Amino acid sequence: MSVTPLPVTLDDIREAAEQIAQHAHRTPVMSSRLVDEWLGCRAVFKCENLQRTGAFKFRGACHAVMSLSDTEAACGVVTHSSGNHGAALAEAARIRRIPAYVVMPETAPSVKRAAVEGYGAQVTECSPTLEAREQTAARVINETGASFIHPFDDLRIIAGQATAAVELHDEVAELDVIVCPVGGGGLASGTALATRFLSPDTEVVLGEPEAVDDAFQSLKQGRFVPADDSPTIADGLKTSLGEHTYPILRDHVSRIVTVTEDEIIEAMRFLWTRMKLTIEPSSAVAVAAIRRESERFDGQSVGIIISGGNVDLDHLPWIEQPA
Amino acid sequence: MSVTPLPVTLDDIREAAEQIAQHAHRTPVMSSRLVDEWLGCRAVFKCENLQRTGAFKFRGACHAVMSLSDTEAACGVVTHSSGNHGAALAEAARIRRIPAYVVMPETAPSVKRAAVEGYGAQVTECSPTLEAREQTAARVINETGASFIHPFDDLRIIAGQATAAVELHDEVAELDVIVCPVGGGGLASGTALATRFLSPDTEVVLGEPEAVDDAFQSLKQGRFVPADDSPTIADGLKTSLGEHTYPILRDHVSRIVTVTEDEIIEAMRFLWTRMKLTIEPSSAVAVAAIRRESERFDGQSVGIIISGGNVDLDHLPWIEQPA
Repeated sequence: MSVTPLPVTLDDIREAAEQIAQHAHRTPVMSSRLVDEWLGCRAVFKCENLQRTGAFKFRGACHAVMSLSDTEAACGVVTHSSGNHGAALAEAARIRRIPAYVVMPETAPSVKRAAVEGYGAQVTECSPTLEAREQTAARVINETGASFIHPFDDLRIIAGQATAAVELHDEVAELDVIVCPVGGGGLASGTALATRFLSPDTEVVLGEPEAVDDAFQSLKQGRFVPADDSPTIADGLKTSLGEHTYPILRDHVSRIVTVTEDEIIEAMRFLWTRMKLTIEPSSAVAVAAIRRESERFDGQSVGIIISGGNVDLDHLPWIEQPA
Repeated sequence: MSVTPLPVTLDDIREAAEQIAQHAHRTPVMSSRLVDEWLGCRAVFKCENLQRTGAFKFRGACHAVMSLSDTEAACGVVTHSSGNHGAALAEAARIRRIPAYVVMPETAPSVKRAAVEGYGAQVTECSPTLEAREQTAARVINETGASFIHPFDDLRIIAGQATAAVELHDEVAELDVIVCPVGGGGLASGTALATRFLSPDTEVVLGEPEAVDDAFQSLKQGRFVPADDSPTIADGLKTSLGEHTYPILRDHVSRIVTVTEDEIIEAMRFLWTRMKLTIEPSSAVAVAAIRRESERFDGQSVGIIISGGNVDLDHLPWIEQPA
């Protein structure tokens, strides 16, 4: 099987780490005896829910924004995003004092829209289809000259997201396994590459909702399979892989574990209860993947990237509410 | 005005810190730009919700359990507690491999009872009155010979709780203000004494629910005023001060700020949303106190002890549920 040359090098990742160092948090790594018992392994959690803007997305967005030339930056940045990338890009733009334009589907959770606007971005709503998003973004670019920053299929973004795994490997040596969720594959690609460079014996496992298992199908079938429009509580993961991320995951990921909606909710609730951390459903997907395969990871040292903590607190999946 | 001699010395607190060091977490100190804007000050949060058993209570309970002689310890320990102290005592007893007996009101949140039992304690239910709790505890002592460990009115407990403020002062020098909630006064007494010893220029402020403002009334009237039985969402604070804690607070606390139920819920929700931490209503009381007096603390350096994170996730105060 042929392997695509690496599009992101360790130097690229180191450069990203250096560039975001003064803006991004070095998030804490946490563990819990009760969670270890529940998962059947020694788990450490890289808490990107405690990252600026509440998700790992700030790493990539910050790196992309800081990489722009002054001339490019002056016209601002634009993206389409279901929320976390939009908030992250808005915050990065605020730091660089440039405009941010965010195209969001009208179905995005209110808490995410409020966050994006709170960071000072201009939001343009569109229909919840990829086509509508791309057309709306193109219109904004024409009007403003802003640089488009893709939520995941961009090498600067991938290098930025990789810095979370860099910090985790730096803090916890010789992990047997590293796990993160996969949606568009930005975090997954960065995690896989950082791990290949820094801890090549560590197995890279991804968690994905069974309801939107396009990455699982892509790796299984050996060809890009797009996501369909099935609903999942892990709304941040309803995205197809990209031109950059698909080959990276194909070549550098050991395997993908799919989990049910109930398993996602169970894992989310367990971490809220036991670790006192609010984690979003997408993050719970990675935890649920370990829980599902607990026999396989029995007693192993497992690093889990908790991708974010942006949750609509008015609607929690385990609480029945009036219609 | 006469001042009672100090019942707990800096040496006592140092000894407690040393004794619990290998068992308790040194919890992280966190901050958030958005929370600072909301509060109008520079706030640092000592995250005791991330302490073992999910609350600062583990510090005092662990110190008390480890202080017992082997003969005393062999018969176990007993307490009455609405939950967090019970869980903490159970966990400390588990570590020392001795029995723990916990008397709990039948009205305690299910999550707290489950936690206490999960740590291996034997729970005895009683009516939700102080008298019933004390009588039931006395019966258990008669039957087992266990040592009674009061939830707050015990000098070992106070010395143990003081260690949270010790760590905070150690990490953040020259706080203008330190704030914690007050219920029975164990944490408040420990915080006040540690601050007096280690950072005497720091103002000690307590937050208390307006609905159960017995500590506020006690300090205002200069005499012990017991708590009545009014309901508050901050159920951990529905407790009168004790023989030890009342004089300590009278002599070493600058003032008490009372807050409404709505203010408690608002602060709780704000920290969940912005800091991705689950904090319990009692902890939110301290945050709400700063928010209420934001003009007074304008621009100051404020340390807030987040006392715990044990919440019944099936019932959140801002979510309407079917009756």
